[in-house]
Parts: sequence; C-alpha cells; structure tokens
Amino acid sequence: VRVRYAETDRAGVGYHANTFVWFECARTELLRSLGAPYRRLEEEGWLLTVTEAAARFLRSVRYDDRLVIDCAIVEAAGARLRIEYEVRVEGELCTTGSTELACLDAASGRPRRLPPPLVAAIGRGGGRAEEEER
Amino acid sequence: VRVRYAETDRAGVGYHANTFVWFECARTELLRSLGAPYRRLEEEGWLLTVTEAAARFLRSVRYDDRLVIDCAIVEAAGARLRIEYEVRVEGELCTTGSTELACLDAASGRPRRLPPPLVAAIGRGGGRAEEEER
Amino acid sequence: VRVRYAETDRAGVGYHANTFVWFECARTELLRSLGAPYRRLEEEGWLLTVTEAAARFLRSVRYDDRLVIDCAIVEAAGARLRIEYEVRVEGELCTTGSTELACLDAASGRPRRLPPPLVAAIGRGGGRAEEEER
Amino acid sequence: VRVRYAETDRAGVGYHANTFVWFECARTELLRSLGAPYRRLEEEGWLLTVTEAAARFLRSVRYDDRLVIDCAIVEAAGARLRIEYEVRVEGELCTTGSTELACLDAASGRPRRLPPPLVAAIGRGGGRAEEEER
Repeated sequence: VRVRYAETDRAGVGYHANTFVWFECARTELLRSLGAPYRRLEEEGWLLTVTEAAARFLRSVRYDDRLVIDCAIVEAAGARLRIEYEVRVEGELCTTGSTELACLDAASGRPRRLPPPLVAAIGRGGGRAEEEER
Repeated sequence: VRVRYAETDRAGVGYHANTFVWFECARTELLRSLGAPYRRLEEEGWLLTVTEAAARFLRSVRYDDRLVIDCAIVEAAGARLRIEYEVRVEGELCTTGSTELACLDAASGRPRRLPPPLVAAIGRGGGRAEEEER
Repeated sequence: VRVRYAETDRAGVGYHANTFVWFECARTELLRSLGAPYRRLEEEGWLLTVTEAAARFLRSVRYDDRLVIDCAIVEAAGARLRIEYEVRVEGELCTTGSTELACLDAASGRPRRLPPPLVAAIGRGGGRAEEEER
Repeated sequence: VRVRYAETDRAGVGYHANTFVWFECARTELLRSLGAPYRRLEEEGWLLTVTEAAARFLRSVRYDDRLVIDCAIVEAAGARLRIEYEVRVEGELCTTGSTELACLDAASGRPRRLPPPLVAAIGRGGGRAEEEER
C-alpha cells in the first residue's frame, strides 16, 4: 500500500492509527490468497471481529512510501485467530504488530468455529502472505 | 468540533476530505435539535443518503482549531433535502459547502417521503442550527 | 483501489467522504504518470492545495469493490488546475466529481505558476489517466 | 466523543482502528487539563510520538454512542510517557488500551526530557483525566 496524503499528519508522517487499517489491507489479501476472501466469508455468515490489536512503531513511514506488509496466521484454534504483521519500506522494518480475531456467527453473534476453507488452508501450511500492492 | 491530529495532513492543515465528516457532525446535531436524531430515524426505517456534496475551501483550518459550523436546511421537497454549511474558526469563514440527501426506505431502498417530525420541524421554521461542540 | 472495510459505514456502503480520498489516489497516479510525482513536487517547493471539491454519488460502492477511477486535467491556467473524475465498478459509473487545485509556493504560501514538467505534459496532450490499482 | 457515522463500518459498529483516534482525543484533553496543550508543546519544539499502541475490544460501540474515556499517565520517565485508557458507554466498559509516547526535540528528532509543565503536573498527582465530550 502507498501511504496516502490523507493518511499523513502534521508531523509529516503516516498517522499511527492508520497502521491498523494497513494491517486490515494485508489481512484481506491474506484471506484472499487462502481462497477465503473476507467478503465471501461475510456473505456466508461468518464475522471476524478484532478483539485485540497492538503495534510497535520503530520508524515512521512517509507520504507516498510503498509499504510491504508481511503477515502470517500464528495461531488458529476454535473460534480464534492470531495474526502478526511486519511493515517494511525499502527493506527496512518500520512497524510490527498483531491482531486477535474472534470468529462469530453473523446471525447470532455467538462464537463459531473458523470457516473450513480457512482451517484447510492453514492445515496445508498456508496462512503466510506477503502483500505488496502496486 | 476540534480538529484532531489524525485529521491533519503533512501540509500541517486539516485534510480537505475530513470537511465532509465535519459536515456530517453538524448535520447530526441539526437533526437532533429538530427532534429527529438520525440514529432513531434509521431505527424507524429511514435512510438519508448523500447524493451530492460540494465544498469551497477559503482558508485552511489547523490542528486543535475549534470549528463552529452553521448549517441550515435550504430545501426540502418530497424525498430530497438540501443542507448548506459554513465553517468558521474564531469568526473567520473557512469553508462553505452543501450536501444533497435522498430519503430512502431502509428495507426497500426506494425513495420515501421525509420523516414527519422533520417535515413538521421544517414547517415551524426550524432547520437552522449552529453546532458549537465543546 | 479496493474499498477497505475501514471505509464502509453502517449502511454497508463506502462512506461518501472517502470518495475524496480515492480522488486523491487517482490524482497522485495521474501526476506520477505525467512525470511529476507529487512527493517530488513538494520537495521542490510546490504545494497543490484543494480549493474546491464536488461529487455526485450515482450508485453506492461496496466493501472490497475494485474501483477504477478515470481522471483528467480539464483546465490548467496560471496557478490553477481543474481535474475531473469518474469512478466505476465493473464498468458501471458510480461517482463523478471534480477538484480545483491552487498551486502555491511552499515557502511563501503565495500562488505560483504550475510546475514546468506538468505544463509540458499537459501541452503534449497528457493529463488524462486511468487508475486501475491491483 | 460521539461515534460518527464515518467511524462505523459495515458490521454496524465503530471500526476498531478509530479507537486509537479516540485515545488521541482523550490524550489531547488530558494534556490540556494539565496546563500543557499539545498544540503549544509542538509550537515550543516538543514532539510526542506514539511508539507503541495496544487495545482490547470487550464490547463494540455503536453509531452515535457517547463515549466516556478515562485516561491516566501511569509512567513518566526521562523522555517516555505511558498512558492508559478506558472507554465506557453508559457506564459499561467497552475498550481498554495503552500508548507509549516518546518525547522528541522537534528540530533534531532526538529524545528530549518531558516538558517541565507536564513533569510538574504529574508531580502534583495530576495526569488523570476523564474526558466527557458533549
């Protein structure tokens, strides 16, 4: 993802809260690459809700920087998923972070086992992706 | 509304697209002051969708500036509403703008007459509000 | 650009103010394609400030939709630039809009003639671009 | 802070990344209440940069909910500050979180001791604030 002008702040750098939006972009592409695009999961009645999010900001990112985000599913059990992220600009590590997601049934709002295509993909050793947009 | 750090960009000023979010804040308070809070309208099956939006940026606004937004319903007919906005900082006019809203039935997505409390309030000469948050 | 989950609202569609951020993405790529990336323009002391912005929303866009944005410089005179935009999803026109930009000297904040590479590109019949990200 | 329509997502709830923007709103008011408004700190050459951010989402927040955010400086040493947050809606705890901030010299980008008014206020047992906007 390219850092948008809208995403900078008056300190001239990418505003930190946007990092969690970039994590979402990476997560979306990760699910897509595993054959389980999130839009389809939702249409089929699953919701993945962020229950925890954390990030460490090592270096700031700048306007128009091209972010390369590596992300990997590091834990998947029952109705929970833990994903870790690393954001780099030209090879330099800028941010690390993680999110915990709870899988819910969209209709009832109750916890629900992870979708089978996701479980299968993780079993095949998937769940690791590198997003490199444009 | 106070301009948030998140809402500035690296030119040091409020990022222009956020203006339309501030317009929304003013519109929300306008509806509330007319006795028709938008959350309740939605619960009762109305949707107000923005069909047009425009703004002229006369002066930039800065971090932590306290925006005073005047807004007024200038037209209301059938299923349409036109609202105009003026944003000031310490009395100085910074931005003018307008939005057109279409009133829809939430279930069918079809145009629907404006909600009666809104029509009544407009008839009483309401539809003019000044938002001055905090 | 893909519509991000962060960019949707509770009506389930892309929140209208984000349209102006997507316009910015398109504008950025337009300038890049003309050999005048905006980051470099800023480094060289130019600022392009949005003075007017307008959009008409014909159809809503949805989460994960892939937006194709056509944009073109339709006027360029002195220190002013007018750009028009069309946003499509799978060939269907969803949004039209325009922005007026003023070219400023970053140091003085005064109007300044458009950067020569931009003027040259426009003269060559450039200034028309289609952004199709990912 | 009222949850804005712009801040919801298509799951109908406040989008999680905005939580860090609301933390910023609370932090800003905390600094203001300590006699050290952040805008003035920046004008005087200090920068407070977020180096770590984390949140746990216990309950989702909804459109137009009125968030009451308690925040407190729990550590302040040298050039570092740790702030903790609790977000409630009508008394119910929705989110907890924390941010680590590094104090920098705006000109050099080097670590710099915390601004004296802040240190003094913390010494007086300040550094605890409840933000209740509107």
